[in-house]
Amino acid sequence: MNRRMVLYTVGNVIKLEAALLILPLITSLIYKESCAVDFLITIAVALIIGFAATLIFKPTSKVIFAKEGFVIVALCWIALSAIGALPFYLSREIPSYIDALFETVSGFTTTGASILTDVESMSRGILFWRSFTHWIGGMGVLVFVMAVANSLSDRSIHILRAEVPGPIVGKIVPRIKQTTRILYIIYIVITAVEVILLLAGGMPFFDSLIHAFGTAGTGGFGIKSDSITSYSTYLQWVITIFMLLFGVNFNLYYLLIIKKFKESLKSSELWVYLGIVAASISVITLNILSSYDSFGKAFTDASFQVSSVITTTGYATADFDTWPGLSKTVLFILMFIGACAGSTGGGFKVSRLIIVIKSIKRELKKLLHPRSVGAIRFEGKGLEEDTIRSVSAYFAIYIMFFFTIVLLLSFDSFDLETNISAATACFNNIGPGFKEVGPAMNYSLYSPFAKIVLSLAMLFGRLEIYPLILTLSPSTWTKK
Amino acid sequence: MNRRMVLYTVGNVIKLEAALLILPLITSLIYKESCAVDFLITIAVALIIGFAATLIFKPTSKVIFAKEGFVIVALCWIALSAIGALPFYLSREIPSYIDALFETVSGFTTTGASILTDVESMSRGILFWRSFTHWIGGMGVLVFVMAVANSLSDRSIHILRAEVPGPIVGKIVPRIKQTTRILYIIYIVITAVEVILLLAGGMPFFDSLIHAFGTAGTGGFGIKSDSITSYSTYLQWVITIFMLLFGVNFNLYYLLIIKKFKESLKSSELWVYLGIVAASISVITLNILSSYDSFGKAFTDASFQVSSVITTTGYATADFDTWPGLSKTVLFILMFIGACAGSTGGGFKVSRLIIVIKSIKRELKKLLHPRSVGAIRFEGKGLEEDTIRSVSAYFAIYIMFFFTIVLLLSFDSFDLETNISAATACFNNIGPGFKEVGPAMNYSLYSPFAKIVLSLAMLFGRLEIYPLILTLSPSTWTKK
Repeated sequence: MNRRMVLYTVGNVIKLEAALLILPLITSLIYKESCAVDFLITIAVALIIGFAATLIFKPTSKVIFAKEGFVIVALCWIALSAIGALPFYLSREIPSYIDALFETVSGFTTTGASILTDVESMSRGILFWRSFTHWIGGMGVLVFVMAVANSLSDRSIHILRAEVPGPIVGKIVPRIKQTTRILYIIYIVITAVEVILLLAGGMPFFDSLIHAFGTAGTGGFGIKSDSITSYSTYLQWVITIFMLLFGVNFNLYYLLIIKKFKESLKSSELWVYLGIVAASISVITLNILSSYDSFGKAFTDASFQVSSVITTTGYATADFDTWPGLSKTVLFILMFIGACAGSTGGGFKVSRLIIVIKSIKRELKKLLHPRSVGAIRFEGKGLEEDTIRSVSAYFAIYIMFFFTIVLLLSFDSFDLETNISAATACFNNIGPGFKEVGPAMNYSLYSPFAKIVLSLAMLFGRLEIYPLILTLSPSTWTKK
Repeated sequence: MNRRMVLYTVGNVIKLEAALLILPLITSLIYKESCAVDFLITIAVALIIGFAATLIFKPTSKVIFAKEGFVIVALCWIALSAIGALPFYLSREIPSYIDALFETVSGFTTTGASILTDVESMSRGILFWRSFTHWIGGMGVLVFVMAVANSLSDRSIHILRAEVPGPIVGKIVPRIKQTTRILYIIYIVITAVEVILLLAGGMPFFDSLIHAFGTAGTGGFGIKSDSITSYSTYLQWVITIFMLLFGVNFNLYYLLIIKKFKESLKSSELWVYLGIVAASISVITLNILSSYDSFGKAFTDASFQVSSVITTTGYATADFDTWPGLSKTVLFILMFIGACAGSTGGGFKVSRLIIVIKSIKRELKKLLHPRSVGAIRFEGKGLEEDTIRSVSAYFAIYIMFFFTIVLLLSFDSFDLETNISAATACFNNIGPGFKEVGPAMNYSLYSPFAKIVLSLAMLFGRLEIYPLILTLSPSTWTKK
């Protein structure tokens, strides 16, 4: 492995984090908060580590392969989180470093699971940084890596493969740097539109930025104990719609930009995604109707929670843990499904679900007609057997990881439902689960060990398992 | 499809059920119980339906293919259960037919989930029949079908494929009828040895028979409210060991009989199975130790519950629902793993788990070395890609079914943990789950709809999904 190039790239990304930390620094200065010092210290630490890494590991060869791509991505998330946790810790607003790390990993992985028991008492600078990590994480370290390592050869496409969520990357444009720029612009523009619409609804500027960050990254960190509950119905609907928008494959937005409307609307993943959303909203609205005063309010709450959960954002306008069993179970299943591939959302992904279901259908067919060939078509193209096999294997490893996380959490004294939902909510990067980790609760009561397990679960989930396995396996580092 | 041959075979199996019902009839006569009449009526009903079916559907051609094999197996289980429920219903010992059907399906599928709130008040004849269905179901309708349809051509091997649990049948001997006979003899002999060992420990003859039936079929129906708790430690260990023995692939016993000791001990599935059992017992013993007076008792209870759950039997010597979270989670995971392929146990099966894990490993390897071939070896042989693909697809459909069952159960008012564990315990043919369906509870509080869902879950689980899908799909019946 080209270790020098790996560590050099990570060093550059750490330098970029130093630059990004200037925004929360400015925020804390505007609000005259003492945490400004902590941001300054963190920036200094990031610059020292960043420059040290890039000086020490100046690469002799810049050629990297898939393996390096995976390892770079994994190390970037870990390094960003480890350094990004410092402001929380130094300011004593989160006195335990493990807690601060949990919160930062939760931010960069766009999970939104929190250990904070009183978010409203936090300083503005800290709250800004906390939500800004969502926005940074949302589009993925990819964009950073691509922007920083601008001298990479074409092989850097491997980084894209490791990072962009979902099984199918879809080459938007042949040249990778242009792709990055286009994705980045789409991301910024949609975020800006959301900020404007939130401002138009009377939300304060700071709040608008925070919630746009949380929505864009499908993260879910807010600034109120009751999440989005106390905002107006208009604002709740704006967030509902933008959560859904950020759960869509970004390739489709690109197709819209280049006016390929028909092609963009032909995406079967899009329609399955919208179909699941519509069906879930219908079932839940009917299920919760009896405990609501009006159909409108039940529909609004159902729509918000469904959109929040399937896109793995995790905002809430209702304590869905108190909803009837059917509604909870629908949300539980949505937690696993997740958003579209190529979006900022997490979870298993709708496209993978479609491929898995198609492969099951083919198997049933083969059972009766052993000689049938049965190629699987997806988005208008025949899928290669390698892709199908790799999706099946991903499904299997995904379920195995889920059980492993639940097992490790069970060393704590919580009940099985809490542990299962905590594992689900963190591994799929949602945030709130049920019972002790429900929307009205938080993750503060878990032991330090469980918090580390959940932090890893968030990282494994966000990076789709493989990059971290490779990074953690000794053979990656020992072999030539 | 050869409909006549399908219904003719089912008719023959129903006639056989009439013959088998003579045993509980004799039991009820010995104990001078009024339910003898109900057994007589049921026998009459079975004979009428059986003879009617064989007369009306006398086949013109006896050739059947895979499809027919699947449908025969599925219909046999349904018919056996529908008729087998009559004695419970007619005797008013289970006043609701849906409840009686649930109990009978639970019996024939060797699940052991019960709706009875007071098992000790039941008559002897009814209890005998209830446990005897485990023993009949344990070895599978296969043996019946093979014994009854003794004029079938060699194509009847398809029935074997549909029935014998697990992905690999393993041709013990080339001729199918001989295989059946050998499996049958092994089954009877091990059952008889267990009865003798139970008698030797002072268990009454009736109790010994009941528990041998429940162990052999990996079913779990008992005759005491506290399952096996009140029996001596010796008797608990006899049942522990026999549960484990019935969870082993029966091919290995055949290899022992023909003195291929080495080959039999080379089975990797056997060692993984025993390894999982040993590891689980160790973890749980240490985890529950503090609440036990002695190490011996903790070890005994841990061993019993682990063996009971992994073999999907479902007997209990302790209310494991009150155990600490770690132990419960280990048992929860064992519920999914299940026993070895080719055993009487249910669940996903150890051999499938091994194949899935090997295919994940291969995928990880392919990620780094895209051109690596990486054939998967299992039990000393290279697996065909078709087998690997079919196991992956089975894993996927298995998980999807699980979520569907949980969703359908959530129409009832129970909590998520109860529903998840009920789905797990029924779909994997175990019996008791956690909380409201824990070892000290029963399934009586579920609604009739949920009971039908759980009955179907037991059937789908026991028949490994495919046969029932085929039987329920209209195209199977309409097309030529």
